[in-house]
Amino acid sequence: MKKHIIGVDIGGTKIAAGVVTRGGELRCKVVVPTMAEVGVDTSLGQVYMSIRDVLKAGGFGMDQIEGIGVCAPGPLDQDKGVVHNPPNLPGWKDVPLASLIRKKFRKSTKLENDANAAGMAEAIWGAARGFKHVFYVTVSTGIGTAVIIDGRIYHGKNGMAGEGGHVTISHDAKGAACNCGNIGCIEAMASGPSTVKHLLKKLKKNPRRKTCIIDMAGGDPDKVTMVTVGKAARKGDKVALETIAEEGRLLGIWLGSMISILDPEIIVIGGGVSLLGNLLFKEIRRTIPSRTINIYARKTPVVQAKLKKDVGLLGAASIFME
Amino acid sequence: MKKHIIGVDIGGTKIAAGVVTRGGELRCKVVVPTMAEVGVDTSLGQVYMSIRDVLKAGGFGMDQIEGIGVCAPGPLDQDKGVVHNPPNLPGWKDVPLASLIRKKFRKSTKLENDANAAGMAEAIWGAARGFKHVFYVTVSTGIGTAVIIDGRIYHGKNGMAGEGGHVTISHDAKGAACNCGNIGCIEAMASGPSTVKHLLKKLKKNPRRKTCIIDMAGGDPDKVTMVTVGKAARKGDKVALETIAEEGRLLGIWLGSMISILDPEIIVIGGGVSLLGNLLFKEIRRTIPSRTINIYARKTPVVQAKLKKDVGLLGAASIFME
Repeated sequence: MKKHIIGVDIGGTKIAAGVVTRGGELRCKVVVPTMAEVGVDTSLGQVYMSIRDVLKAGGFGMDQIEGIGVCAPGPLDQDKGVVHNPPNLPGWKDVPLASLIRKKFRKSTKLENDANAAGMAEAIWGAARGFKHVFYVTVSTGIGTAVIIDGRIYHGKNGMAGEGGHVTISHDAKGAACNCGNIGCIEAMASGPSTVKHLLKKLKKNPRRKTCIIDMAGGDPDKVTMVTVGKAARKGDKVALETIAEEGRLLGIWLGSMISILDPEIIVIGGGVSLLGNLLFKEIRRTIPSRTINIYARKTPVVQAKLKKDVGLLGAASIFME
Repeated sequence: MKKHIIGVDIGGTKIAAGVVTRGGELRCKVVVPTMAEVGVDTSLGQVYMSIRDVLKAGGFGMDQIEGIGVCAPGPLDQDKGVVHNPPNLPGWKDVPLASLIRKKFRKSTKLENDANAAGMAEAIWGAARGFKHVFYVTVSTGIGTAVIIDGRIYHGKNGMAGEGGHVTISHDAKGAACNCGNIGCIEAMASGPSTVKHLLKKLKKNPRRKTCIIDMAGGDPDKVTMVTVGKAARKGDKVALETIAEEGRLLGIWLGSMISILDPEIIVIGGGVSLLGNLLFKEIRRTIPSRTINIYARKTPVVQAKLKKDVGLLGAASIFME
């Protein structure tokens, strides 16, 4: 009987669960609301429900399941399977998630943070398939990363390695305060919202600059996202093109440093902002070689993630394959 | 019969060779000039001579030697044992050093770059003894680092990982151009000579500021080094104390980032500048926690290297113990 893995991706607003084959094929999927605002017990109930529902939806029995992989926002302790207190899951405090699920379903259960899980899925089934040393990046609301060495997620001493989004690239950046408390983190400089924030600041300073970005957001600057900027760029809007180029340049500077320290075989970039595609990637690739001491950096592939919207689920499942 | 290791440390001006026990005890040592300016064949002759001389000096026979470890300035290829073209060894171009020595002495020979070798020696015999995940830093003319994971030097894809000195901490630093071609590298901001350069610039701008630093260098600003600054600081010179504090702050910002990405068990700092001791270390330790997302960073020990001046030799020998 073929054994499959259940992947559960716990986010701030929704929980997605899927049955995944060892080959990385998503056989079925359900999505339920997280309901974190109601309380941690309710959220846990939703997690259990998503697991039961996905089995039912796909017509699978528990005997066909090898184990359960769960990913959640950090900080968390992979080894102990405990979710500490993620800002996105208010009320969760030191929840022993892996052991709760293990007891409930009598299945081996593993926990991992979402960026690490997504990186693992890309390394096993996605854009970095066949590579041992991978640097995975997700650029969206924040910037998350995973350091994969010899095909395994590198966790460091306290399970907190791979927080590359909080590497400082501008030690005295005025105003680029990061949510983590530090300043000048690449996350504070080049995440989606950070990039939009800098763009709006610039436009305020120079209101006569012609751009269709605000119009495309219905005239409301607060509605501008990187999706808006991407659409405007595709229409040839110069401000939008400059904004994406600047984001690419900042990411390139940072990735140059990451190559100096890690010398990975491949860099995979996922997350919503990566969907800007070549507009972003060409500037990243152009910038890297002049921002690293690594003479081979020019040959380090920097590629778009492959797994797109189900990467969370697949990531959760992939930690069984490590 | 007890087996020992020969360690050979090739520098720009001198070559040191030593016989080292498996316990890290240096049994004897010789130093000869590198004579790189005469030509690569002459320098190679000096390397061979240092090996023969150190055996003679200690009364050892080749049958007591397990192997030869060599360290040299990078860039080099550890796997192939080839030294590429280090700026400090003019004329050396793709020298297959390990195989030349192996053939000459019929002994297993390994090659490693000097920062990695020094880090390994600290991990096996020095300040990081007993730790698996170590970040080693040497601050002197430049800033070199070694990333040790699970007790082994992490080399990355091209053998160029661990070049932490070329991580950008100031992406738009005006004038902080690095020898590597990048700008804003921590090496360009906080190595010994960089720190002195920034100090002299400041004094030029504000010539009325009282300090004994220039006097202590015989009145010649060109003679100022971090040794001078350290001496002045110990006399209570405010400018000197500020200079060291600022260097510690920059190193702390950078190490905060390194902790975010690597989460090491311990950070060991060696090199000439580390001899400033607590004046420097207290500022590094004070800065780190506010410059990383890692909530355990406060507990990550940041300690002075233990092996001091023979670390090159011992490092070369230690790569046999990896």
